[in-house]
Amino acid sequence: MSSSKADRGSETRELLLVTAERLFAEHGVEAVSNRQVSEAAGQSNNFAVGYHFGSKEDLVVAIVRRHSESIERRRMDMLARVTGSPDLRDWVSCLVRPTTEHLTSLGNPTWYARFIAQVTTHPTYRKLLVNEAYSSRSLKQGLEGMFQLIPRLPEDVKQERNDMGRLMVVHMCAERERALHEGTAPPHSTWEFTAAGLVDALVGLWLAPVTARR
Amino acid sequence: MSSSKADRGSETRELLLVTAERLFAEHGVEAVSNRQVSEAAGQSNNFAVGYHFGSKEDLVVAIVRRHSESIERRRMDMLARVTGSPDLRDWVSCLVRPTTEHLTSLGNPTWYARFIAQVTTHPTYRKLLVNEAYSSRSLKQGLEGMFQLIPRLPEDVKQERNDMGRLMVVHMCAERERALHEGTAPPHSTWEFTAAGLVDALVGLWLAPVTARR
Repeated sequence: MSSSKADRGSETRELLLVTAERLFAEHGVEAVSNRQVSEAAGQSNNFAVGYHFGSKEDLVVAIVRRHSESIERRRMDMLARVTGSPDLRDWVSCLVRPTTEHLTSLGNPTWYARFIAQVTTHPTYRKLLVNEAYSSRSLKQGLEGMFQLIPRLPEDVKQERNDMGRLMVVHMCAERERALHEGTAPPHSTWEFTAAGLVDALVGLWLAPVTARR
Repeated sequence: MSSSKADRGSETRELLLVTAERLFAEHGVEAVSNRQVSEAAGQSNNFAVGYHFGSKEDLVVAIVRRHSESIERRRMDMLARVTGSPDLRDWVSCLVRPTTEHLTSLGNPTWYARFIAQVTTHPTYRKLLVNEAYSSRSLKQGLEGMFQLIPRLPEDVKQERNDMGRLMVVHMCAERERALHEGTAPPHSTWEFTAAGLVDALVGLWLAPVTARR
């Protein structure tokens, strides 16, 4: 393959990723076909998604990975700075700010937060995100740092609060991204503003006494 | 119209509501057409949804109302019992348990929690839920009771935490409903178990100190 042909291939791939992310974010993963993605990306070949990515699942994973490398790198840097910190807030920040800072760096409009919310709500593709999270070294390290600083919790409560926190961050970011895009976000608000509110709330959630009889 | 014809009309309406709720919960509101709902409900007339409900938006509202009356009634009863209570947990319960008790009363499988999660994630229909919440007298009363018992919060933090709590409850219930349906929920868990975990977490969220500079 000539190098200009390789360049075109990589441009097409990038165009398909960006287009698919936007369409999935707006309409849901299930409502949009591979063919619609190819068409919206201006590809004369309706099988462009199949050719470049394989299945829709492979496409979803490729979109996730396009962002997760940057988020993972930000979290590793942040963790290196908070090593040994006795402040719970520092560790909770490592769970929230790599995502909000990544979103800030992309400018407006972004589609990533709404895309993740749609995938999280999908009956089968949601498992792809769970797998990505499990394989994230930085997420594991951030959670472990946090658990050192909170009272010991039963394993099922830990799992449950992890789910609650994850859903809160994913869907709050998606709602803010939509508000930003539609021009309905409060005028002086920023992603840092959102992150600060989420960190406060997550600290409260993780420190909350467990009163439930189980 | 003869009374048996009226009965058939009301049966068809009910069948369309149940079928639409399941399809929307599984595939998302946008991925399912009115025609698909009519077909899946075994209606020979493909315009059955239009005839009985009008637009898809009207159908979504009708599904929401089918449940909200029972939830509203449960919350009014619960509020009558906690009037004057100095226990924050009692008031937070009024925000969570009317929904989880309604889900318990429906048996397994239910689709309502996943349906609400899908509507919440939809770019335009989500506003229908916001309107329903605003017009709920019991929700207003429950929140007011709760605000009496927590330190005074800036208006924007109040709004933000209300959003966080709402998203947490909606999506945790949807994930549990899916796990129940797929047989992957922990064996001894119940909706009451989920409610108890949510109440603990929401108490922590609402009592969390506000440290964010804004």
